[in-house]
Amino acid sequence: MTVHLVGAGPGDPELLTVRAARLLATADVVVHDRLVHPDVLDLAPAGAERIDVGKRPGATTPQELINALLVHLGDQGLEVVRLKGGDPFVFGRGGEEAEALSQAGVPFTVVPGITSAVAAPAAAGVPVTHRHASAAFTVVTGHRATGGSTGVAWEALAAVGGTIVVLMGVTERAVIAERLIAGGLSPDTPVAAVRWGTRPDQTTVRTTLGALGVTEVRSPATIVIGAVAALDLAPTAASTTEQVR
Amino acid sequence: MTVHLVGAGPGDPELLTVRAARLLATADVVVHDRLVHPDVLDLAPAGAERIDVGKRPGATTPQELINALLVHLGDQGLEVVRLKGGDPFVFGRGGEEAEALSQAGVPFTVVPGITSAVAAPAAAGVPVTHRHASAAFTVVTGHRATGGSTGVAWEALAAVGGTIVVLMGVTERAVIAERLIAGGLSPDTPVAAVRWGTRPDQTTVRTTLGALGVTEVRSPATIVIGAVAALDLAPTAASTTEQVR
Repeated sequence: MTVHLVGAGPGDPELLTVRAARLLATADVVVHDRLVHPDVLDLAPAGAERIDVGKRPGATTPQELINALLVHLGDQGLEVVRLKGGDPFVFGRGGEEAEALSQAGVPFTVVPGITSAVAAPAAAGVPVTHRHASAAFTVVTGHRATGGSTGVAWEALAAVGGTIVVLMGVTERAVIAERLIAGGLSPDTPVAAVRWGTRPDQTTVRTTLGALGVTEVRSPATIVIGAVAALDLAPTAASTTEQVR
Repeated sequence: MTVHLVGAGPGDPELLTVRAARLLATADVVVHDRLVHPDVLDLAPAGAERIDVGKRPGATTPQELINALLVHLGDQGLEVVRLKGGDPFVFGRGGEEAEALSQAGVPFTVVPGITSAVAAPAAAGVPVTHRHASAAFTVVTGHRATGGSTGVAWEALAAVGGTIVVLMGVTERAVIAERLIAGGLSPDTPVAAVRWGTRPDQTTVRTTLGALGVTEVRSPATIVIGAVAALDLAPTAASTTEQVR
């Protein structure tokens, strides 16, 4: 029938959309990433097949194989939920999956999810935009920071004047900081690195751009660079998830 | 009790989060923007007070008044949902509301919502990131494009090399295009302007950066600028919302 490319959100299972929850409840097959919360997978029927295509050390499922799998399952007339962390179109390679399905003539839908680029900072008290502090924010992947022509012009990004949110940038953070400073950002620019944002084990490291390279930050983390990273508007009431469980 | 700053998502009521739906169901008061879908407001109890603080021509509620109202309601021990279009921290002035609540000692939480910056393009078949096409995207507000020091360095933005998503930029689109071209972007750069993205009355205008200023685009629209705007990965299956209603 239909393959649904569905964003699972930033981590907290209650940040799933109503539509995602409904589609999961009637799915024949769930093809999911490794980081999707078990409570979310539990929304699928007990008899639904669950296929973990998550990338892990030594056992990565190539994207081409995932594309072919989705086409194959769709061709069989199954109701398929392809569940991805965050949003399918924010560095989720959902675009490639949509292209493969489109080319194969398999009907598909796209269900956006909340990206951790916005939600992880928010959970740590950092708004990605703020009046007087930021009129723009750029979300960028850091895992190709040292690459060539496909990479990002970090020096130019430094001159934009907005918030910078780096996903998958922990390993390359020293190079990223160096290039942003070369582009004109002050070494004193505030930085907040949020690990497991929106989850109970969330941790935040506050530092500066100049010290980012030598500050211990563990993967996976969302790294926010800019004036807003000095704000601390973290919720002052308990997360309500726990109250109902 | 608690004031919840809640994102209502991009328009489609099914793109609300599970948490937002649950908080609405037990709210004493809902303080909402004008563009929130009626079906979403209907999730609150029939007896809950609904206060429309949406900005409309000739009757704008000042932000300071909204802040004071939230503090006042929270101080009365009410369960308050402050429902905002999109995400509270993406040009939603949620940061200011959080600051006001924090300073007044009123407990609050922040519930992210799906921003139309990502979801509106997706609904029109445009992924904001795509392998080989974009390793970054910048979300920027256009309504101060002609402004001074608080504005965005559009020329620098042109040099970053990623997707540019402009919110609230319809009026200023000619100036924005001019400045991006001055910054080095080709006049042939693809542009997609999505109005009412994710809603049944969604419309998309495709143009180029060079022609954006003279292309008819109506407010409100999400304007996507970059190579991804030439993609057309629009869902090929019917939206599933209609099937269940």
